[in-house]
Formats: sequence, structure tokens, C-alpha cells
Amino acid sequence: MEEGKCTFCQIIDGEIKAQVVHETPEVMVIKDKKPRAPVHLLIIPKTHVPSVNEVNEILAQKMGFLFLAAKEASHKYSLSSNGYKLLVNVGRGGGQDIDHIHMHLFGGIKPREKV
Amino acid sequence: MEEGKCTFCQIIDGEIKAQVVHETPEVMVIKDKKPRAPVHLLIIPKTHVPSVNEVNEILAQKMGFLFLAAKEASHKYSLSSNGYKLLVNVGRGGGQDIDHIHMHLFGGIKPREKV
Repeated sequence: MEEGKCTFCQIIDGEIKAQVVHETPEVMVIKDKKPRAPVHLLIIPKTHVPSVNEVNEILAQKMGFLFLAAKEASHKYSLSSNGYKLLVNVGRGGGQDIDHIHMHLFGGIKPREKV
Repeated sequence: MEEGKCTFCQIIDGEIKAQVVHETPEVMVIKDKKPRAPVHLLIIPKTHVPSVNEVNEILAQKMGFLFLAAKEASHKYSLSSNGYKLLVNVGRGGGQDIDHIHMHLFGGIKPREKV
């Protein structure tokens, strides 16, 4: 294992197991191990970017694929008609635990439910 | 006014006033009229896309600029070191009120605070 490799990079490289529900060349979508909603997925770019604070013009275009993967994953769970919420925590103060951008997808919740 | 033009398109076109805090060729960032956090901004793509459910490969790249604008706006409010949260509601059931993709930026909140 490469020293200092983050948890999500290890998952992407198959070194840590995860329940993969969708995958594209740019993005991996896995189930959250500690779900906080009936459907709780993590949408992870395969490129290691520590946080939104590190996004530049080139990376921004890659990060856009998180939305496409969210849409595609939502279809698999038939969430498209009922809706869902996408949350990105930025920095420790923003609740980010792992320094690799990831988007939470919450489904099966109420429209005004906080996530 | 063009019939059926959404609220955000009217704001982008200057037909409805809003407190603009940041603007790029792709994105406009405004203050939320009913803030739910000490800093509550709306990051809006200038391209009208009703929801994440309508994002395709081409639009995905444009939507990535929401992250770049979030980062830039966070600098203006000195949020980068403390962190912040980004939320996108998708569909009525996901709490989306206006059918034009928008990302909420919440700053000045606690790491585990729900938004």
C-alpha cells in the first residue's frame, strides 16, 4: 500500500472493500457504511482532490461528473421521481472526515428533512 | 418578460434583483433571501437546467463550475479554513422549490450541524 493513500483512493484501487453500486471512468458510487437515510450513497471522483477548496478550472469539469453519477445512481434506486439530496462537506469545520472530495446522496427522506 | 422564465433566469438576466456576491461567465452567486445559516448563499449556473435529473455529459462539465464558484465565494466570506457545506436538493421530494439547479452554501455552522 502506498504510504499516505487516502481511504477513498484505496477503495477505488480495490485495496479496501466497499459496496459499489455504480462506476464510470471518472466516478465510483458506493454505499455509506453508516447510512443516515434509507438510501445513503457516497459519490467519489477517482481523481484524488482533497476538498472543494482545491478545485481549479480543470478539476471543476471533472467534478461535474459527480452530478451525472448522482443522477445515474438515483435511477438504480428509483429515486428520480421522489427526489433526493446531495451534500458535500468541505473542511473539518464543514464536517468533512476524509480528505478526498465526496458527495453524499440521501434518498427516501422527507422534502424538508435536514441531512 | 419571457413567459415561463424561471426565477433564477430572471435574476441572471437582471429582471429580478438579488444580492450578487460573486459572478463568473458560467455561474452567479447570490445571498439567500431567507438565510438558514450565518452565511447562506445560492450558487446558480447561468445555463437553465431544471434539476440534476436533467444533467447529461455536456452539462455535467458546466455544473462542475458550481464547485469552483463555491470555493471562490467561500474565500470572500473567509470560510475556507473553517469549512462549509454544499447542498443540492433534487426534485420536489428532495426539497427543490425552483426548477433551475442551485447549490446552497452554508457557512458559520457546526461541523455536525444538519442543513
